[in-house]
Amino acid sequence: MVKNLNKSTILRLARYLRVLQKLKSLGFVKVFSNNLGDAIGVTPAVVRKDFSIINIPGNKRGGYNIDTLIELLGNVLGKNQPHEIIIVGCGRIGSALMEYKEFAKEGIHIAAGFDIDPQKVEPRAGIPILDVKDMPTFIKEHKITVGIIAVPDSAAAQVMEQMVSSGIQGILNFAPVELKCNQKGCLIHNVNLSLEIENLFYLVKLADQLSEPFELV
Amino acid sequence: MVKNLNKSTILRLARYLRVLQKLKSLGFVKVFSNNLGDAIGVTPAVVRKDFSIINIPGNKRGGYNIDTLIELLGNVLGKNQPHEIIIVGCGRIGSALMEYKEFAKEGIHIAAGFDIDPQKVEPRAGIPILDVKDMPTFIKEHKITVGIIAVPDSAAAQVMEQMVSSGIQGILNFAPVELKCNQKGCLIHNVNLSLEIENLFYLVKLADQLSEPFELV
Repeated sequence: MVKNLNKSTILRLARYLRVLQKLKSLGFVKVFSNNLGDAIGVTPAVVRKDFSIINIPGNKRGGYNIDTLIELLGNVLGKNQPHEIIIVGCGRIGSALMEYKEFAKEGIHIAAGFDIDPQKVEPRAGIPILDVKDMPTFIKEHKITVGIIAVPDSAAAQVMEQMVSSGIQGILNFAPVELKCNQKGCLIHNVNLSLEIENLFYLVKLADQLSEPFELV
Repeated sequence: MVKNLNKSTILRLARYLRVLQKLKSLGFVKVFSNNLGDAIGVTPAVVRKDFSIINIPGNKRGGYNIDTLIELLGNVLGKNQPHEIIIVGCGRIGSALMEYKEFAKEGIHIAAGFDIDPQKVEPRAGIPILDVKDMPTFIKEHKITVGIIAVPDSAAAQVMEQMVSSGIQGILNFAPVELKCNQKGCLIHNVNLSLEIENLFYLVKLADQLSEPFELV
């Protein structure tokens, strides 16, 4: 167990890594904690504290070497490990995600799509479409840990339970229902598209009544 | 200007409203601040403070009437106003969103889709697909305030600027680039799908090293 490592810290480490990769691609060699802090909106002290948690020694004066930071952060986060996912539900959203080219660019590979009616799903480039009945076995055999739910809301909770009991630990849920997982170490991120749009309308309507300007999240 | 009204408060008000609508559909008539607090993960004091900001008087003992709360929150948030949006970029993701049935269920109407090559886009039920050149005029004429960006990353920033300068105030961005808007009162919510998946992998990998269990967000 790493002392003080919590979810927010991990998400910040991921954001540092992405900023560092961009800086590297621009030809930068060194970076200071205040640059990184500015880029993700935290103080330099938070950056140095986050790095100390994963045993990267502080370097206030000379700055950090970007290559070294990328390697260390990549190792901690498992950036270079294979990222194999499954997509459950091959309707409009699921199918669009199967053809989403950005996944491949970021090293995310879709091992299979699952549907209750796999014959009806138009086959996608190289991704097998399997019966959802075969999902538990597939997850176990391929040691899949992360998956996407894109089934109707009525099926979402049952699909989630099957996924988690087969070994899935992280789920991105597009079904329009807020899923909660009670098992320890199981993480669900709900992406409710209607809700996102609705919230934008609410915020836009109330924009001129805010006591402080919008903050970007 | 409403004192102490900020973005977090508005998003909580939206969550209360959704919980209240569910309670109403279950036949509930009254609700207490601690029930609402439990449902969205805040203390009863926060609930009462949020309500006092929008002039709903506190009622610790008797509970709140659900119908009244729904009406008051709906008025403040503009729940019953028409929610007309546009979708810019009619590739896989944009097209999937145009056929996403949940939008209609929540009162979100897609006024038009825009593409650089509208002839190539398969027409969707009742939604006109227009040339992106005509977008600024359309936004102004139809007084559209919220839109979705689903164009490639290289086009996203330019599309955002055109949208905002034509009157759009809220944007849900699916392009895999973090857009920032410098104009006041313009809100962008970036949904970076690769990044969401990557973060799940990082969190799953580090789950057993966390000093505290996952919190659901």
